[in-house]
This record gives sequence, C-alpha cells and structure tokens, in this order.
Amino acid sequence: MRAVAIIGVGSHPTGRFHDRPLKALAYPAIWGALEDAGVTPADIGVAYVGNSLAGLLTGQEGVRGQVVLQHSGLNGLPIVNVENACASAATALRGAWLEVASGAVDVALAVGVEKMNVGDSARTIGALSAVSELDLSEMGMQFTASYAIHPKVNLKSRMRDYGWTAADFAKPAVKNSFNGSLNPLAQHQRRLTIEEVVQSRIVVDPLTLLMCSSISDGAAAAVLCAAELAPRFTSKTPIRIASCVLQSGVYRLPGDARPDSATTSAFAAYEKAGVSPEDLQAIELHDAMAPAELMLYERLGLCAEGEGPRLIDERVTTLDGRVPVNPSGGLCSRGHPVGATGLLQICELVWQMRGEAGTRQIVPRPHVTMAQNQGGLLLGQDSAAYAVTILTD
Amino acid sequence: MRAVAIIGVGSHPTGRFHDRPLKALAYPAIWGALEDAGVTPADIGVAYVGNSLAGLLTGQEGVRGQVVLQHSGLNGLPIVNVENACASAATALRGAWLEVASGAVDVALAVGVEKMNVGDSARTIGALSAVSELDLSEMGMQFTASYAIHPKVNLKSRMRDYGWTAADFAKPAVKNSFNGSLNPLAQHQRRLTIEEVVQSRIVVDPLTLLMCSSISDGAAAAVLCAAELAPRFTSKTPIRIASCVLQSGVYRLPGDARPDSATTSAFAAYEKAGVSPEDLQAIELHDAMAPAELMLYERLGLCAEGEGPRLIDERVTTLDGRVPVNPSGGLCSRGHPVGATGLLQICELVWQMRGEAGTRQIVPRPHVTMAQNQGGLLLGQDSAAYAVTILTD
Repeated sequence: MRAVAIIGVGSHPTGRFHDRPLKALAYPAIWGALEDAGVTPADIGVAYVGNSLAGLLTGQEGVRGQVVLQHSGLNGLPIVNVENACASAATALRGAWLEVASGAVDVALAVGVEKMNVGDSARTIGALSAVSELDLSEMGMQFTASYAIHPKVNLKSRMRDYGWTAADFAKPAVKNSFNGSLNPLAQHQRRLTIEEVVQSRIVVDPLTLLMCSSISDGAAAAVLCAAELAPRFTSKTPIRIASCVLQSGVYRLPGDARPDSATTSAFAAYEKAGVSPEDLQAIELHDAMAPAELMLYERLGLCAEGEGPRLIDERVTTLDGRVPVNPSGGLCSRGHPVGATGLLQICELVWQMRGEAGTRQIVPRPHVTMAQNQGGLLLGQDSAAYAVTILTD
Repeated sequence: MRAVAIIGVGSHPTGRFHDRPLKALAYPAIWGALEDAGVTPADIGVAYVGNSLAGLLTGQEGVRGQVVLQHSGLNGLPIVNVENACASAATALRGAWLEVASGAVDVALAVGVEKMNVGDSARTIGALSAVSELDLSEMGMQFTASYAIHPKVNLKSRMRDYGWTAADFAKPAVKNSFNGSLNPLAQHQRRLTIEEVVQSRIVVDPLTLLMCSSISDGAAAAVLCAAELAPRFTSKTPIRIASCVLQSGVYRLPGDARPDSATTSAFAAYEKAGVSPEDLQAIELHDAMAPAELMLYERLGLCAEGEGPRLIDERVTTLDGRVPVNPSGGLCSRGHPVGATGLLQICELVWQMRGEAGTRQIVPRPHVTMAQNQGGLLLGQDSAAYAVTILTD
C-alpha cells in the first residue's frame, strides 16, 4: 500500500453552540482543512464522515455526511458515513487512509462532527447511553457509572492496590487544564488546581465533575493524499500516517487474562509503524474521564502498572516534558464532541508537528506522535472500538 | 489492487418479525455466510456492518455492529459501522471489498441488518423521513411523496411524454411478484395481477399500495476474500467482484443537464468491470417503488428513455428473459429492510450465478450480473447514495 500523508486539517472551536446545526459546525472544519491543504472540492476523491449521536439528538438519522456536505461542492463523490461511538472520527480517518493507501483515490477527506447541546442534557445523556450495549441501560447503568464499575478501569482497585488517591485522579485534569488554557479552540480555558478538581461535586464516587469531559459541540476535518503527491498541493510539511489501527473490544468471560484492547491496539500500531513507546514525542489520548489517562499510560506502554501519577509528578507528560500528553487540553479541557474527537486529536498533533501550536507549542517540535481514541461500551467487554494512529514527519 | 471474490452469502428471511431484535435477525445471515464460505470467525480480518434506522427505531444509536456481533466470536477485529440509507448494505460490501482488494486483510465480512417493524408504523415512517435531508420533512414532504414529486422520477411526466399508464407502472410489481412467489425467503410470495396492483389503494397518485415496498425486517451477509485464496476455504464457485462503485447524488440547480447519478454510477461500474449493459445476464435493482424499475432500465442503459414497459411486455426482463431483473422478487416482493437490501441483492445474484436459486433459477446460469442499490433523499439532489456492484464468475 502507498504511503499516505495528512496535508491539511481544520476544526471548529469546541464548546456549547446551541444555535449551530451540524452543517454550521462542520463547514469551518472542512473549509479550514481544504484551505490548509491547498485543495479544492474537485480534488477530493472520497469523503468519510464520522458522527455518533445525530440520529437521536438532531433527528438526522440517515445520510448525515451527504446532508453536512450538500452545499460544499462535495457531492457526486463516494460519501461513507461511519460510526464507532467516541471513536467515530478516528474511524473516518482510517477509512480515508485506506482509500488513499490502496490507490482507490489520490485525495480523501475525513470529517468528524457532533452536536451534543440540544437544550436538554438529559436527552444528550440518554443518547450517550445508546452508544453502549442497550442491555446495560436496562440494568440501570450509565456510561459514566461504568467507568467506576467496569473491572478494567476500576478506580477503587487502583486506590487499594497502588495507593492512588483522589489527588492522583485529579492530576491529569489539572495538567490538561493548563494546556487547554493555552488553546483558543478549547472548550475550557481555565487553569484548575488539584483542590478545585477534588472538591468539585461527585458524579460517581470517586469521579468528580472536573474529572469528566463535558457535553460538547464541535467538528474537525483532515485532508489526506498519497505522500508522493503532497508537494503538488502544499509547501507545508506533509505529516505521514505511519500506522492507523482499528480494533473492536474483546468479549471477556471472568478470568480472561488477555491484555486490554487499549494495549493490543496501541502495540499493533507501534509494530506497524516500526516505533516503540519510547519514540513518541507527543500523544493525544482518550481522557474522557481524567483518571483514564493514568491507566492509558500503563496500557500504551509508557509506564508500569500503578505508576501513572508519577509521570505527571515527574513532569514526563506535561507540556514541557519528554512526551507531552494531551497538549490540546484533551477531552476534559479541549472538549469531547464525541464523533469529532478523533480528528480533533489529529488536528492538534499536525499543528504541533508543524510548529503551528502557538503558546502551547511543544519544544522541540515533535516528529513522532500518536492519537489514541476509543468509544462505546458493551457488557463484559473492553470499549467497543479502539483507534490508534501514529504520525511521523 | 487484488481481485476479490465473494465466497459465502447468507440471509435471514425478509418479512415481519416483531419479536426479533437486530441480533436475532443478523445471526442466521452471518452464520449462513460463514458456513457457506467455509470460514470460521477467526479467519475474518474485518467486519463492515450496514444499518440505517436502529438509532431511531430500536434505540441502539451507537456501535451497532459491535452489539450485533458481540456473541458471535467476531470481536477484537476492526468493526466499521456504515450508513448510507437504503444503500447501507452495499456500502458495507464496498468497505469489505476495499479492505481485501487493498491487501489490508485476506478475508472480510459484510453485514446488512434492519429492524423496521417496531409495533408502530408511524414511528417507522418517521424514521424513514430522517434518512432524507430534514429540511424536506419540515416542508411536509415524505419519502414516498418525493417519488411522485421529484423531477427526475416524475411519473406524471412519463405519462404525458411517453403515454405510460397506471398499468405500465404496475408491470414491474406483477413481474417481480411472480419471482417472489418462487422465493421462500421473500416477504410477499403472492402472484399479483395488473388489476390488483392498479386497483389497490392510492398512496400518492399515481402510486398504489402494491407498487410500494413494505416495511420489512431482515438481514444479509457476505464473506469476501482475495480471489486467489478462495480455494483454501471452499470448493464452490468464487464470485468475482468485477467492480464496486459508490457515488453520492449530485446537487442540482434548475436546468442542470448532467446525467442522473443512477446513470453515472452504473456506467462507472461498467467501465471499471470492462462490460456493457448488453453483457448483463441478471440484475437486482432498487425498485423501492415499482415504477422506479422502469426508469432504472433507462438509466442503466438497458433501453432508451420511455421504453421501459416494453422490456417487460417483450419478456426481456422476466425470469425467462434475456436479462432477468429482480429474480429475487425485488424490493416490492422480496422485501426492503433498508439497511440489508444491498446485500440481499448480492445473496440472490450469488445463488443465481452458482445455480442454487431453486425454482426461480435463471437458465442458463448467469455469468455477468449487477446489483444496483440506492438510498436517501436530499432537496435538489438525486438520491443521496448510489452503489453498483458487478459480479462475474
């Protein structure tokens, strides 16, 4: 397969935009990506559009991509609507990558867009439950509660086994709030303290409000092309997709000792890219709840089990660290419009790798980076979808 | 890219199955396809799952494929949930094709599943409206009405310009009801007469009830592999995918003289497969409303404009004709569970090409066939998605 490069990215700010429909969120991202890449709609051979919740939240159940793209000049081409819960945008990216890598097209567009603020947060939370296996909600469980209950992410067991404290759980939120404060596109641009996070109201013990990502609207897009064609469109540094891995979670019976799918998907991506965890110079990862970042450190091979908080204490993953994690602010500060998040991660990494990240620019500029995106929940299973993308320049 | 073959297909019967959830519809199709192909779940490298309406109709908004496949042994692998309204299953097929053609995997599964009977047909019709651009429904339009109003399928203009009559509109329904009567998996297995079709109640003048496809539940699946690997799994004739084309509709201003997207997608498929319309020996096409079959005859290059009814009068497209169309019974008789239809078409063609179609077997066995699937509706546009697959043995 051919080498594939990202040559343009664009995003809408993430936040609460009650009056903006899907199209209005998507267009700035799409036009931004096209302009950044130096391509016109006529250059695009295929479009993948990721969205998770529009059926239940906006009523637009079908052909969401065609509706979003209708007046963009992007019609006639193949449009593939993809969904994988909070990993929908990364799934769109993978589709676009495969189209270009296979030679089916030379230039592809990946879009992720989500409208979550619809004036009734109970409706939004209900829709989020519907990206789980519905038997779960029949049992009275919710997505957030599952983070406390699910055995693989059981925070209580980390407290018992490794002595983690509420302050440890808060550390990623505090670190990422600093990064978000430097990101003009972030939903939350306020620097938090450990005390503020720990003392905010409890959502599900031991998770507090400021450890959780918010209900967000947003959109992001990327233009991909065959790496050898990049100079035809832009003089900017093409960012290579070294690997792009998608896995679904594994269904587990009690006692199943196979590694978590967050681990297997990351290590599959390392292997395909020919890199090790130690090679990474920046990571955007799926901190839907702040403590998840600590456990992902372990699963991505950045540290041994139980050592997550140390990576923040020792400033390994801070913006000035050896491998900054969530320089954008991550899901908790940058925001988590679920069907857009995977491409918002890609936007951040591309900006960082090009040296275009403004006051939150990682120095020196990173050359090997990773986006880790996951989503959905099934009873007795890891998350439903895991998507890992490794970028190099 | 590599040559790709379909080595196994399976389907659930199409009809009204009030008590069966998505999983129960999908499993017989999936197990049927795997068994037919001689593969096990461990052989499958990726799964594409097409569905259009589950978010609004069953509440399962996200990770539908993971939910359907959870207890099938098919997890851990990449699962991509795709949607393109009534062309969702063909979009799943195209995804699976690209995975194998590109060399990303050796064996892929494509699934289409739809549960439309939820005990409240108004809810189902509402959900169908939501696979249109929603501005349409705000104008009081519905999917069915659009078939009468949309300028490209304006039946009234065919009556005026070519003298088509209500009896002409009924002809595909009558022809296909005969085929459906021979198909034990069809929703409607009753032979209709012109009089019965014309005199059934008017839905939208000039469309009558028996000219319309019904609300259907159903599922279909196909296993694809690299053509050179087919003998490793099965001794049955591998059915080659000669081309697999997806296009979105073109947004049109009044006076736009470009050919309809049904035409451009079909001719793109002919070109990629190196065949002509005259080479086709069987076709499954998208007769969501019976008269659409007549207009598709024109658009697929089977006859000149206005000549559609003649192809049935002269028994060109009947089961004993030169190029039988909708041998399964088509959408009106076989049934139209929207997100499954594209793969139900593929099942029928594979069975016909292998000589496994029982009493409706086309004689001699066809060697070059086409599936034409389309879906969704946007204001000022052709259908939202067109998918055309040409098969050869």
